[in-house]
Amino acid sequence: MNKVITISRQFGSGGRTIGKLTAEKLGIPCYDNELIEEVAKSCGFAKEYIEAHGEYADHRTWLGRAIKSANRFEGMSNQDKIWIEQRKLILKIAESPCVIVGRCADYILREREDILKVFIHADDKFRAERIVNLYGEKPDKPEKRLKDKDRRRAAYYKDYTETEWGVASNYHLALDSGKLGIENCVEILVNIYNK
Amino acid sequence: MNKVITISRQFGSGGRTIGKLTAEKLGIPCYDNELIEEVAKSCGFAKEYIEAHGEYADHRTWLGRAIKSANRFEGMSNQDKIWIEQRKLILKIAESPCVIVGRCADYILREREDILKVFIHADDKFRAERIVNLYGEKPDKPEKRLKDKDRRRAAYYKDYTETEWGVASNYHLALDSGKLGIENCVEILVNIYNK
Repeated sequence: MNKVITISRQFGSGGRTIGKLTAEKLGIPCYDNELIEEVAKSCGFAKEYIEAHGEYADHRTWLGRAIKSANRFEGMSNQDKIWIEQRKLILKIAESPCVIVGRCADYILREREDILKVFIHADDKFRAERIVNLYGEKPDKPEKRLKDKDRRRAAYYKDYTETEWGVASNYHLALDSGKLGIENCVEILVNIYNK
Repeated sequence: MNKVITISRQFGSGGRTIGKLTAEKLGIPCYDNELIEEVAKSCGFAKEYIEAHGEYADHRTWLGRAIKSANRFEGMSNQDKIWIEQRKLILKIAESPCVIVGRCADYILREREDILKVFIHADDKFRAERIVNLYGEKPDKPEKRLKDKDRRRAAYYKDYTETEWGVASNYHLALDSGKLGIENCVEILVNIYNK
């Protein structure tokens, strides 16, 4: 019996939308921005700061990494503090049925048997069109925005979980939302959850 | 509209069984050992030789790799010859609806839009029990047999496709047969194929 669905997703793949729609159909809550707001309340950082540091590694040069590494000896970074708060919150909300989008929830809940771990991805063309529709044009080309966000999500994931992001065997289910369609992905998840 | 399902699979995950059952339900052929027999006929190698070299990289030491690499200058290796025959055959059978298990069919058919690319995996415990039930005990422990076969399949895939095996974004659908169950995987594939 599944209780919690965790959704990891490539930027622009519609993973968040799939999470929201699946949760609606199942009549359970979906946590995404709600998580950010709760973490903001409990650790005092601004929402925007958590959004930027709660699942993305910083842009890092070789020197930046060395400084970060050196800083660790002096205590926790802000990112570490956010990680700890997010982790506590995820463990708490996962006591009841829900969908959780991003934030390494799959890793945080890895010991539990009642978790359905999902990865959503799509090809660059589908995602580039989608982010321009959703978030508009930006100075950087959409392909560059995709690459940058995915790289930083993968680096954040690796930093905190020591596991590779996007490797099929780390998830129970990985779906190409471009090929299968968002509605179809929702239907697949609803059916599996209810089995 | 999908025409061909390609199934890549971790050793012992039940990918072959899922392919056979899905094909049966869809009323289309499934090619696995049949492919080996056809390749044997057309290029003259023994069936057992093709089975061992048609989707597994050789056990290789550093020296072995250097010799293989040097041999390439003198023409094709036997493995290259089998690859070429397999590729021709896969292109031919994929003109009609079918399921193809293994043998880099996903890569060989990558330009086509009517292909559903699937990856089947499961955790070590599920697979170890399954291979002992199916193939019996062997001198090597089941965990070692899994690791060895997967490593050689991944190396073969990388050799011929220059792409990583088992990365979620290379497939339209990746399923954990241990978590979801073999029957359920078949049902998911049949539903998607028919959409």
